[in-house]
Amino acid sequence: MVSWNNLDTLKAFHELEQTKGDVVLKDVMAGEAGGERVKKYQMPMAEGLTYSYAAKKVNDDILEKMVALAKEAQLVEKYALLYNGEIINTGEKRHVLHQLTRGQLGDVVMADGVNKREFYLAQQMKIAEFAKKVHFGEIVNEAGEKFNTVVQIGIGGSDLGPRAIYLALENWARTNNTLKMEAKFVSNVDPDDIVGVLRGVDLAHALFIVVSKSGTTLETLTNEAFVKDALAKAGLDASKHMLAVTSETSPMAKNEGYLAAFFMDDYIGGRYSTASAVGGAILSLAFGPDIFARFLNGMAAEDKMATNPDPLQNPEMLAALISVYERNVLGYPTTAILPYSQALCRFPAHLQQAGMESNGKHVNRFGEPVNYATGEILWGEPGTNGQHSFFQLLHQGTDIVPLQFIGFRDSQNGVDVEVKGSTSQTKLCANVAAQIVALACGKDDENPNKCFVGERPSSIIVGQQLNPEALGALLSHYENKFMFQGFLWNINSFDQEGVQLGKVLATRVLAHDTDGALKAYSDMLNI
Amino acid sequence: MVSWNNLDTLKAFHELEQTKGDVVLKDVMAGEAGGERVKKYQMPMAEGLTYSYAAKKVNDDILEKMVALAKEAQLVEKYALLYNGEIINTGEKRHVLHQLTRGQLGDVVMADGVNKREFYLAQQMKIAEFAKKVHFGEIVNEAGEKFNTVVQIGIGGSDLGPRAIYLALENWARTNNTLKMEAKFVSNVDPDDIVGVLRGVDLAHALFIVVSKSGTTLETLTNEAFVKDALAKAGLDASKHMLAVTSETSPMAKNEGYLAAFFMDDYIGGRYSTASAVGGAILSLAFGPDIFARFLNGMAAEDKMATNPDPLQNPEMLAALISVYERNVLGYPTTAILPYSQALCRFPAHLQQAGMESNGKHVNRFGEPVNYATGEILWGEPGTNGQHSFFQLLHQGTDIVPLQFIGFRDSQNGVDVEVKGSTSQTKLCANVAAQIVALACGKDDENPNKCFVGERPSSIIVGQQLNPEALGALLSHYENKFMFQGFLWNINSFDQEGVQLGKVLATRVLAHDTDGALKAYSDMLNI
Repeated sequence: MVSWNNLDTLKAFHELEQTKGDVVLKDVMAGEAGGERVKKYQMPMAEGLTYSYAAKKVNDDILEKMVALAKEAQLVEKYALLYNGEIINTGEKRHVLHQLTRGQLGDVVMADGVNKREFYLAQQMKIAEFAKKVHFGEIVNEAGEKFNTVVQIGIGGSDLGPRAIYLALENWARTNNTLKMEAKFVSNVDPDDIVGVLRGVDLAHALFIVVSKSGTTLETLTNEAFVKDALAKAGLDASKHMLAVTSETSPMAKNEGYLAAFFMDDYIGGRYSTASAVGGAILSLAFGPDIFARFLNGMAAEDKMATNPDPLQNPEMLAALISVYERNVLGYPTTAILPYSQALCRFPAHLQQAGMESNGKHVNRFGEPVNYATGEILWGEPGTNGQHSFFQLLHQGTDIVPLQFIGFRDSQNGVDVEVKGSTSQTKLCANVAAQIVALACGKDDENPNKCFVGERPSSIIVGQQLNPEALGALLSHYENKFMFQGFLWNINSFDQEGVQLGKVLATRVLAHDTDGALKAYSDMLNI
Repeated sequence: MVSWNNLDTLKAFHELEQTKGDVVLKDVMAGEAGGERVKKYQMPMAEGLTYSYAAKKVNDDILEKMVALAKEAQLVEKYALLYNGEIINTGEKRHVLHQLTRGQLGDVVMADGVNKREFYLAQQMKIAEFAKKVHFGEIVNEAGEKFNTVVQIGIGGSDLGPRAIYLALENWARTNNTLKMEAKFVSNVDPDDIVGVLRGVDLAHALFIVVSKSGTTLETLTNEAFVKDALAKAGLDASKHMLAVTSETSPMAKNEGYLAAFFMDDYIGGRYSTASAVGGAILSLAFGPDIFARFLNGMAAEDKMATNPDPLQNPEMLAALISVYERNVLGYPTTAILPYSQALCRFPAHLQQAGMESNGKHVNRFGEPVNYATGEILWGEPGTNGQHSFFQLLHQGTDIVPLQFIGFRDSQNGVDVEVKGSTSQTKLCANVAAQIVALACGKDDENPNKCFVGERPSSIIVGQQLNPEALGALLSHYENKFMFQGFLWNINSFDQEGVQLGKVLATRVLAHDTDGALKAYSDMLNI
């Protein structure tokens, strides 16, 4: 029997609170013992990745208490409830089924009268067939010519994840000759966004995917109208260029205005929808369905890792425990995600959404205010770029920011140059290794301005190469980590009531139904 | 006589500390009085911009104390020292002269035996002439053909600012027929960055600008080598395609490998170098020197605004005072910059560097540790995108994040579509107005999960359109704000000792001179 309790009611949490200050990184990371610690405090992930937490403020005692906390909070049991189809999203009274888009970890889940794994798989197959027909020139434009570009029109979850994944694999795909179509993305209701994107698109050879679960997302419908206008002005038939990704009950579902429609449903939150038709359509069209399937395999493999009841063999669970420890025991309000891989340039922005929208909550899953901090602020940029930017503050600022590095031994493209005795890829890797140690251990100096206090904790995920499987495992790692964090905080990570008020007030502004401050701001903006 | 004192030694600061909790946003922003407050708590900036701070936690009493703090901290006097050429960067014993790249606010500043304003202006003119020759086809490639693309190779300050500004004006320039050349940027030492960028570049018609003040930045030299390799393989003469932006004393300065060299110097920090040759070369080539000059005019105009001794007529000074109040009195560790303009998509990343590298310091300007928080963590993404991402946490998370909105009444391109009775641009503006009020005022609900606590402070800068002048004013606003923050914290905002240790350790890794933890991480990464 699973019970849902606030973090601050758990015995193991209070025991963890007693450990604050127990680990001094510059001590434990020093000398040969530091080397041994690095070798010991790591564990395998799926697809050849390794999760290393040696530079986090843990020791055997703290890890033991984290294991106890995982057990007391029943993390594996709660995960099992989720993938077995329990109504985990209690606020909206919905299943949480994004894992079923890439595998079946537990029971058959029936909802809306269908086997949900089969439903998602059927959509994936339908997309795969459609994509192959486009690639083989069986589905063509009005002039009988092949499409060469696909444009995603969506916002939030319909944009950030698919965009981050596309960018992560674009160059890999070019190198491996699997880039079938170039992909572009439009999200903002700012007309300058779509005007800019359309400038670079050959409309006659472009497919547009309109992505909205409800079929009512105002930004997306507005951008859709923009595209239809542009197609009409170019003398093109919009219905031969537009695809829909939506739920079966939305106004976009059975609509002759679309060449095809692919479905997801209410059991997949936007921020977890990359593995569904939301990411599937554009990624299958861009890279081919086989590449998308490999990405899903990576996700499924890491989803499975996350079922391990032992946090020391479960990277997602341990990462969540460490994050909660950093947030609620050590008191760090933000975390930076720093991939040493240019291909992951928008991966932090996607995780910012996935994490902050999931866990930025002030009430527990029963709607009661919590007395502790929940979701942290997530941000980040790729290295080595960040080293020439905000790393000054990471090293010498007055606040400590826990860090999550990501690195790969090999580049995606295999092309390199040797300068001063080392390749670019080696320099990249050398920098991330150096940063971890510099941040943890610091350095004394008689000039205080050149002094590094150290004690900046970090983890790193290391892989051989950023390929579809590794990328899938990486994304699943974070999705499952956010889920475990939510379980620890006893919040509902799967609703987003916080986005509603802004929508309501924006509607009032557009209806000129305003007074007071709202009217004054509307006037200032000439609305 | 100016004296440099720590923030916590200032009487006015302690008086401000007493005001914590005095302002309840949902009270002061309510009803007709809220509307009056919005009209009152704003001030003009240069170039038709308006700075509005009505949704910040201030009242007349707090503002009066802020005025006293500005006076006690001698903010205008310190700014005057800076632009009159005092050695403000005491750590490195250097002048701080980035303002001279766009205007002359005070005394003639002589350094290295020359009038520095004249030196920067001469570089600007030299770049302008060069750019015109490229645009008019007087400087051409080996085959006598015009160049059509310019690629910036730089990192940190040589990348983020110029890139953000290019992206901010790219579509504006296309609409106004002033885009002369397409610009691209390479920064990361990750070889996948340059491989990806070079895939989209027609080498024969491309100019490459190598930007490194010292001429020794390893990432940049590595990427330069990469480009030279690529040019050689394509049978092209690198010296006909490569430009240098560097200091006159660097190894890149007098080097026949470059078609031309343009100079900056040690008195301009990388993060403040967009207005110098670092940004000037690429922006003048991309948009034409006249557009770059208009951008500089906007900067100069706002620089001048920042000299006003009255914080209530000085947007940069008041913004700095409010930020320090939020950081050191209200205790908020991060700030988000949220432009409601897709063109400003990378502006927050540039400001993240400029702010965090400037003010992420743990010692005061005399090298003594400070007992208060300094530079905040800066992050942000454009709206409305963010509304479908991390805004959940902004509205309902357990932490408060002060916000800085930016919005424009008109789009850059003037092309729009009307859906459900309003244009995209109107929807964009309606959303930012709605968010300010929703975040400040919140909303009660009997369901706590639908309850918004409010009390989330924000400011907004509103302009008519994002054009070169407005963009210049906007960038100057932030640069000067960071400077005033640094004066209040009594730190040196113009050095960056915190980046050194990582460099030293990376060099050791590359030399295989490692042991312990550093060796273990090196092994993990296969170095």
